[in-house]
Amino acid sequence: MKKIILASKSIDRKEIFQQAQIPFIAISSEIDETYYKKKIKDPLRLVQTLAKKKALDIKKKKAKHFKDAIIIAADTIVEYKGEIIGKANNEQEAFKILKKLMGKTHDLITGLAITQMGSRQLVLDYDITKVEFLPLSDNDIWDYINSREWKGRAGAYSIRERAGLFIKSIHGSYSNVLGLPMQKVFQILKETFNLNLLDYII
Amino acid sequence: MKKIILASKSIDRKEIFQQAQIPFIAISSEIDETYYKKKIKDPLRLVQTLAKKKALDIKKKKAKHFKDAIIIAADTIVEYKGEIIGKANNEQEAFKILKKLMGKTHDLITGLAITQMGSRQLVLDYDITKVEFLPLSDNDIWDYINSREWKGRAGAYSIRERAGLFIKSIHGSYSNVLGLPMQKVFQILKETFNLNLLDYII
Repeated sequence: MKKIILASKSIDRKEIFQQAQIPFIAISSEIDETYYKKKIKDPLRLVQTLAKKKALDIKKKKAKHFKDAIIIAADTIVEYKGEIIGKANNEQEAFKILKKLMGKTHDLITGLAITQMGSRQLVLDYDITKVEFLPLSDNDIWDYINSREWKGRAGAYSIRERAGLFIKSIHGSYSNVLGLPMQKVFQILKETFNLNLLDYII
Repeated sequence: MKKIILASKSIDRKEIFQQAQIPFIAISSEIDETYYKKKIKDPLRLVQTLAKKKALDIKKKKAKHFKDAIIIAADTIVEYKGEIIGKANNEQEAFKILKKLMGKTHDLITGLAITQMGSRQLVLDYDITKVEFLPLSDNDIWDYINSREWKGRAGAYSIRERAGLFIKSIHGSYSNVLGLPMQKVFQILKETFNLNLLDYII
């Protein structure tokens, strides 16, 4: 089986692979995200561009060590009323983000880039999941922030941890809310890279 | 904080509590599920009756040991075209169930019962999440069955593990697909039992 490189340091993305019991190597890319975030205002173009840059960064740096390896990269944002919301830098920002999203439905958008060492194939895609929050009091929001789940997460929450208490419903891919739409990864790997993830023996 | 008893032996339900970092004690109930499954043909009545019986079984047996404890019980089924689908007993049954659901949308239904030791309060509720599968070949279904995830799961799959590869989308509560609609548990505990799960310190 081909080696899979996950170009990410996100614990949620790694967790998806671990739970699915698919072997992978996590290598985080080093790109100037701020530059692209300032330059690109369209959310779908932004997340796909960032995913592509991350994938190509790893492809360039690690080509010698991982012949034939598949590289999967992703970038996730929250969009609410036309505003692009990323990660919070501190508790006050996390509060402002969560307060805005409570009782409402937002879009969780992930851009996806998949390529292979030694190949010119590069597939870009994206996925959107609608996420509806229950209304929460300011006190409850602060209690949630104290769990520190907001750190490093687009939209300042993690569906697979305590935020599950106030996520009323989602519409779309679940793994996309964690930052990696696995049903798309599965289909792209099968159709374009001749790799069936269900073949990995547990 | 009050003690929480989860009247279940489901690893997915325990995992929800663990991921949310909420302390709990798991005690599995002993009721004759087959009797009720034969007697009750309405899916919503069936899952709520089974959840109630599980909760009351624990309430009766453990009253001396856990004063004031909250008891949470649930029962989960899949409904597809009017047919109630539970757990598979062997690989052949798992294949038949999965083959039927591939490329289609089914309802994942959980009945929920919450009560408290020494209290007459008993809240029954249910939650329905629509789950859409990608189409999979018979070979892929067998590969999935080899992962052994089908064991002990209504509908013979687990969304938080490898089945995430072929779940195209869900509509409703994510934790409900795991067998426990946490957003409902959160709201019922707050409104009826004066317990705020966000108060548990991580």
